Amino acid sequence: MTPVYLDNNATTRTAPEVVAAMLPYLAEHFGNPASMHGPGTVAARALIAARAAVRGLLGAAHDDEIIFTSGGTEANTTAIQAALAATPDRREIVTSAVEHPSVLSVCGWLEQNAGVRVHRIGVDPEGRLDLDAYRAALGQQTALVSLMWANNETGTVFPIEGLAEIAHKAGALFHTDAVQAAGKVALKLDAAGVDLASVSAHKLHGPKGVGALYLRRGTRFAPLLRGGHQERGRRAGTQNVPAIAGFGRAAELATGCDLRPVAALRDRLERGLLKRIGQVRVLGDLRDRLPNTSALAFDFVEGEAILMMLDRAGIAASSGSACASGAMEPNHVLRAMQVPFTAAHGAIRFSLGRETTEVEVDRVLEVLPPIIERLRALSPFGAGQTLAEGAQ
Amino acid sequence: MTPVYLDNNATTRTAPEVVAAMLPYLAEHFGNPASMHGPGTVAARALIAARAAVRGLLGAAHDDEIIFTSGGTEANTTAIQAALAATPDRREIVTSAVEHPSVLSVCGWLEQNAGVRVHRIGVDPEGRLDLDAYRAALGQQTALVSLMWANNETGTVFPIEGLAEIAHKAGALFHTDAVQAAGKVALKLDAAGVDLASVSAHKLHGPKGVGALYLRRGTRFAPLLRGGHQERGRRAGTQNVPAIAGFGRAAELATGCDLRPVAALRDRLERGLLKRIGQVRVLGDLRDRLPNTSALAFDFVEGEAILMMLDRAGIAASSGSACASGAMEPNHVLRAMQVPFTAAHGAIRFSLGRETTEVEVDRVLEVLPPIIERLRALSPFGAGQTLAEGAQ
Ligand SMILES: Cc1ncc(COP(=O)(O)O)c(C=O)c1O
Ligand SMILES: Cc1ncc(COP(=O)(O)O)c(C=O)c1O
Repeated sequence: MTPVYLDNNATTRTAPEVVAAMLPYLAEHFGNPASMHGPGTVAARALIAARAAVRGLLGAAHDDEIIFTSGGTEANTTAIQAALAATPDRREIVTSAVEHPSVLSVCGWLEQNAGVRVHRIGVDPEGRLDLDAYRAALGQQTALVSLMWANNETGTVFPIEGLAEIAHKAGALFHTDAVQAAGKVALKLDAAGVDLASVSAHKLHGPKGVGALYLRRGTRFAPLLRGGHQERGRRAGTQNVPAIAGFGRAAELATGCDLRPVAALRDRLERGLLKRIGQVRVLGDLRDRLPNTSALAFDFVEGEAILMMLDRAGIAASSGSACASGAMEPNHVLRAMQVPFTAAHGAIRFSLGRETTEVEVDRVLEVLPPIIERLRALSPFGAGQTLAEGAQ
Repeated sequence: MTPVYLDNNATTRTAPEVVAAMLPYLAEHFGNPASMHGPGTVAARALIAARAAVRGLLGAAHDDEIIFTSGGTEANTTAIQAALAATPDRREIVTSAVEHPSVLSVCGWLEQNAGVRVHRIGVDPEGRLDLDAYRAALGQQTALVSLMWANNETGTVFPIEGLAEIAHKAGALFHTDAVQAAGKVALKLDAAGVDLASVSAHKLHGPKGVGALYLRRGTRFAPLLRGGHQERGRRAGTQNVPAIAGFGRAAELATGCDLRPVAALRDRLERGLLKRIGQVRVLGDLRDRLPNTSALAFDFVEGEAILMMLDRAGIAASSGSACASGAMEPNHVLRAMQVPFTAAHGAIRFSLGRETTEVEVDRVLEVLPPIIERLRALSPFGAGQTLAEGAQ
């Protein structure tokens, strides 16, 4: 039985077309794009094509606004330190309490080691940004705003265009972690007015180990990795040509890809589970959510236990950020949303993909209700009514 | 005609065995190693195997001393900033004038932005480190010594074991950029006593976009990329599983690989060229040099012109670091060695590999002499006797 993979926010299957696009650069065209000879030139041409494809996916205005990195974490780290380094007269960052750990950790580090003040704007129970607090936090000292386009845990989408406008009124640079949004919602970075944005190929059926930092032309910048002319001196190190070529192909495949069928499957999954299981809530902003993500909190069960039993049944999901797994407390996103403790502990994230089928969804609908029932029967809190009325 | 590839210090052909080792993780085993389910576990196991293989190649004592990075530049950057961050009471770095730009640039940045004092130890005309200057530069303030194991331009090998010992006597951490040495000379990092070392897979027939930082157990450290538990919290970001698996395979292939045949071919090339062409010198320390590297300086010709004509003849070489190409002045290594101006401008680097054949070497011996002759005939300085006596 092939596993049912519903953990696409953690990583996605590298598309076969993407692997095919990579292979020539892993084999005969192995040159270093910085080299001034035939093999180098062939490699350099691959970068040109991939850059144009990624620009297209992101809705950037110019190819040179795309800087290839080793992934989302490096792009986030580069964006934040670059904005700080380029704005020595402003010493504050405004971000949110629900950002990816790669954003929050850099901010925390700058706070503790570089005298930077960090404002972490809260969210309401649906995960929506507190706009009043956001406006209040901005000021003459704000070097950078860093707010994610879409949340990896709940799929909640922030209104980036408006948020960027507010940041610019305060004279701050605006960065968005678009790692989860890219390939799932149309990103028009140029039109949205953002200055910097991070993406990661492996979240959109591209290879691991490659991402991009969007840097609007004219934006002040300081590299994180120095010592080479690669990426116009903005990211040193031999470029990962096969992965970049694969990223380009993945970007082409994702551009204009219609995810309404994925949303329909996600809704089928949610409706089916809510019908069959009681004491469960859907987390996030149901009015503006990624089409593929469903975060569900089951009262009186441990998310890790659900995960394990799903895994045994051949279903791969997540109990919070894959990056945070290993730590057993509810993740920072659910805490910021003030999800009640009993529910947050039983939170599961299903993240569908464009390969997900109705058969797979129906398999979850078949497998999960008895798992929850069994776990609740074992739970010291879980006595009594646990199945939804509709399922009786 | 397949090109004769003699630019292995820029990058190497990904070995077919390496590509084969990567493919499963690009296709069916695409999981995120941080995920707590079947697909994640399969990916995590690949990391364990690769880490052991890289440990073996490097002669490290423990698998957990290997931190996977996106390449040599990231490893160098991480090592240097980590040593500085972990030693707040020492504010000096000792390095050399012939390091790779990724080392020199971080040092320069710290000098200009973080009040760090940088000592750049010079070399003699053969590229050997000035040991007296090295000893004199070390002191109570030295946080870190960063000296390369082998030079990318000339192949000159520094006596790392002794240099590390001297650094430790001054209480400093010792980092070595072993990017060019790994896979070419036996690295016994544990025995050599170094604290940190950088390697890059694509220089040893592994994939681009992956490298490693060796960090001796117990060495103080601060990550460059934060916000994830990956690599024991020392390098955040979804691990590049296919590339890491490929790196592991490349490390296995390189471990104990006998490069004496490569050295013999390199010597055949050098002897042949010296016999056929006059006014040429071999650069670097001929007593302790990488087996694959030959840096030659031809008087009264432009290296870039030689390169171009070699390229047209299907021979790929380099006129200095690939990373530095584009800039037309002699690179910093040749300047530090005080190679005379007329010769430095005509410097060419041939870097052979374990795939290089005698037929390929003989092709260079056939093609290059008439190229030099022609270019010298065109040169305003190149009148008169240009062919070696032996070739007449
Ligand atoms: C929102 C978000 N930002 C950043 C990242 C980090 O991306 P990568 O793992 O490619 O470094 C992730 C992935 O876990 C993410 O979901
Ligand atoms: C000595 C040395 N150090 C570091 C590097 C950088 O490695 P990478 O290109 O993998 O970042 C190179 C490669 O150019 C090198 O030759």
